[in-house]
Formats: sequence, structure tokens, C-alpha cells
Amino acid sequence: MKHINIIGIGTGNPEHVTMQAIKAMNAAEVIFLPLKGADKEELAEIRREICERYVTRPAVRTVEFQVPQRQTADRTYTQSVDAWHGEIADIYGELISGLPDGGTGAFLVWGDPSLYDSTIRIIERVRQANSIEFDYSVVPGITSIQALAASHKIPLNLVGEPVEITTGRRLARDGLRGGSTVVMLDGEQTFAKIDDADAEIFWGAYLGTGDEIIRSGRLTDIAADIQALRTEARQRHGWIMDIYLLRKGRDFEE
Amino acid sequence: MKHINIIGIGTGNPEHVTMQAIKAMNAAEVIFLPLKGADKEELAEIRREICERYVTRPAVRTVEFQVPQRQTADRTYTQSVDAWHGEIADIYGELISGLPDGGTGAFLVWGDPSLYDSTIRIIERVRQANSIEFDYSVVPGITSIQALAASHKIPLNLVGEPVEITTGRRLARDGLRGGSTVVMLDGEQTFAKIDDADAEIFWGAYLGTGDEIIRSGRLTDIAADIQALRTEARQRHGWIMDIYLLRKGRDFEE
Repeated sequence: MKHINIIGIGTGNPEHVTMQAIKAMNAAEVIFLPLKGADKEELAEIRREICERYVTRPAVRTVEFQVPQRQTADRTYTQSVDAWHGEIADIYGELISGLPDGGTGAFLVWGDPSLYDSTIRIIERVRQANSIEFDYSVVPGITSIQALAASHKIPLNLVGEPVEITTGRRLARDGLRGGSTVVMLDGEQTFAKIDDADAEIFWGAYLGTGDEIIRSGRLTDIAADIQALRTEARQRHGWIMDIYLLRKGRDFEE
Repeated sequence: MKHINIIGIGTGNPEHVTMQAIKAMNAAEVIFLPLKGADKEELAEIRREICERYVTRPAVRTVEFQVPQRQTADRTYTQSVDAWHGEIADIYGELISGLPDGGTGAFLVWGDPSLYDSTIRIIERVRQANSIEFDYSVVPGITSIQALAASHKIPLNLVGEPVEITTGRRLARDGLRGGSTVVMLDGEQTFAKIDDADAEIFWGAYLGTGDEIIRSGRLTDIAADIQALRTEARQRHGWIMDIYLLRKGRDFEE
């Protein structure tokens, strides 16, 4: 039976890679590398660098493939995601079909495969289509949440308190609660629309890479600075990946 | 100036260790290894094994120290944690004082230093006491949350939906919401008190180690089985570390 390793590789620092990830990469006949357009060529370059640095078994090949764009016109968010997963599943199916019998393929996932990543869902979809027999394993990786906390040298949670991980879209809809809220996938800079004098923000972009930028302070004091910084950085790089923690309250408040 | 590396080492699988963690361990003159009583000797053993496996620079020494028990009698939870941090800060202060001038020490943290771990807070406390000059860095590590999701081969979040990370104590107080809730630090098996026909549970103990156990299913169907399994495993090992995800709802529900 064929096997797929879904491998978390961290957030851009090649040293985020775990020993387990290195082993799983070297166990593969083929490592599949996604291309997401010219804008994100830097991200493809980091994946290639990780392969060059850590793949030591000469028989391991890499194969690059184009990831289609998600179509958003005339459909709801979930319809859009569902259709997009279907398109990618067809591509994964072809890649897996091309593996030798009993062979192992690997997909490298930015961050961790368990958080706001569709690889596990799409692989399950390929399996459920039943035309190819294979099983798969998941190797965890460092997420941008962890890279954010490490760069700011802060715990995510207040003592004994919960942490909410959410998206920009949901934050805009639900508003900010107390405690710790980590916001991912926020292209709309939702933080700047929150008027809360008690909130602190810990923001980071390009975390783990040489271009990392971090800022922290009272949200209402620095939201505009972060917006300006983000706009400038995004123009310069052609892309941005950023994340932030919003926090209200203090340790040891009952 | 002295320097401290606070290093996340993952959850018991020595291969969770990242390249960055290995580099940070080898940069230290001394790695400080906590001992938490005879019950948890297995955990100390995993830390020692990680040092043996990955520390290649001969000058690196390890120093073991006893961690005091947290006292809970006649005080609130936060008073108890606050006093305990104070005691540990005194011990850290002595360990750091013992480093040579300009030397580097390292603390190895189970999981990731940013999540339900007190090392960063305690190190900040030592710094704020102002008697020793040092700075510090944080190296992220794989958490048991990620190990749980990888072993179950599931995403934590439903498509586009938030994830709540909480404690057993808070789950008991707040009840179960919809979506995804990860529960850590639950010695009371709070899941078994939740009567919700729509909830699924994904449970794991000793994640990443050779003794890993996982179970998943409808909460009301398997809660009693997990309780029995947990009690038996805890007696056999003398300790248990477990974690679970409770999930309500499905992908692509609007």
C-alpha cells in the first residue's frame, strides 16, 4: 500500500523543523512541493531550502505542482472552500497515483497540519473517492502562534485561563472577549476596528524568517502604526503572513 | 551578560525536538533538569535521553534540581500558583547565579513554553528581582495539542471556525460551547460530566511516547471507557498526562 506523510515544517525558519519531520522527509520517494503563484515564490524557496538542507537520502525526489486559486465570486465562503478542496483533491490524486507501488510521498505543510490547513481534509477526500489505496501519517510542526509567542517571549494564556484561536472573519463577527485571543488569517486588519482601551496587542509578520517584524503595546496606541507597517511590508515583499494575540486582563486576577 | 534559553522539547517523543532546540541546547554551558518526585521519574528520564541524544558539544553539563510541590491548602488557586512561582524563582535565581559570567543556561520545557507553562513567568520574576543581570530567549516546541491532532490525524478547527484551548477547571465552570474545545490540565475527567449527545471526543494520553493511548468517538458512548482506561493506566504508570478535543458540529455547516 502507498503511504503519504503530511509533514508540518514550521513557519519559515528552517530550524523549526523537527527530527521527526526530517525522518519523514527522508522516508519518501517523492516530496510534493506546492507553487502558489509568483507572489509567493519566497515561500516555495523556503520549502526548497528545507529539502536541500535536510534531505540526505539520494533517492528522494521533489516534484513541484501548481495550486489553483480559490474562486470567491458568486458563492458563500464554505461553498468556495469546498469547491477549491475538490480541485486540489484531483491534483493530489494524480500525484499519489504516480507514486510507485508501496511507495511513500510527502506533503510539506507550513506551520502545523492541524491548524487552518486543508491538507488532512483533502487527503481524506482523495481516500474517500476510493480510486487509490493509500494510508497516511501526520507529523506535527511549529505553528506561527508558537513563533509569535516565542518572539515576544510571552505565554499565550493568563494563569489558568483559556486561549481562543480564531480568524479575522470571526473576530469581526463575534467581537473581542476577555483573556487571550489569537487571530490568524486576517487580511482585513480587524484589530484596527476594535476600540477597547483595555486590550493589548502582540503582532508579528514573517515570523521565523530573516524579515520578521514584531510590535506590541496597547491596541489603541499602536493599531495605526501596525497598519502602516503592514501595508509597507506587504508592498515591498509582494505578500505578507501575519498573526496577533489580543489580550485583556492580567495574571492572578480572580 | 548571562543568557538563558527556555527550550520547548515536545511531549515525550525525542523526535519532536526541533533543529533550533538542538542548537540552543548545545549553546549552553549548563542545562538545568527539573526533578518532580519519584512519580514523574519517567519524565526526568525522557529529558535525560533528549540531552544524551542531541547534546554533542562536550563542554555542556547538566544539573538536576528539585521542583517544590505546589501547596493548595487554605488558599485560592491563584494565591497557590503565585506562592509556588515565588519558591521556584528563588531556585532559578540560584541556578542562574551559578553560571559563569557571560555564560548560557538552558531550561527544557515539556511541550511549548507559551502554553500552560510557568517558566517564562518565573524567569521574568527572577529578572524583575534585579539581583542578577541576564537576558533570555524562547525556543518553541511541539505541544500535546499538536501531538493529539497528529495521532488522531484530524484538524483541530472546523473550516474557518475558532478553537478554544481551556483547562478542566474552566470547562467545569463554563460548560461546553459549539465548535472545537481542547481541554488540558484536567485531573478531574470533566468530560465525563458533560451530557451532550452531539459532542465527539478525541482523547490521548502519554502522547508521543511508546505508551501512547488514543480513543475517539461520540462522547456519551465512550466517556466511561476512557475513564476506566485512564484510571488503569494512571495506576500502572504512577502518573498520567492526557488531553482531549471536544467537537460539536461539522465542516461546511454555515
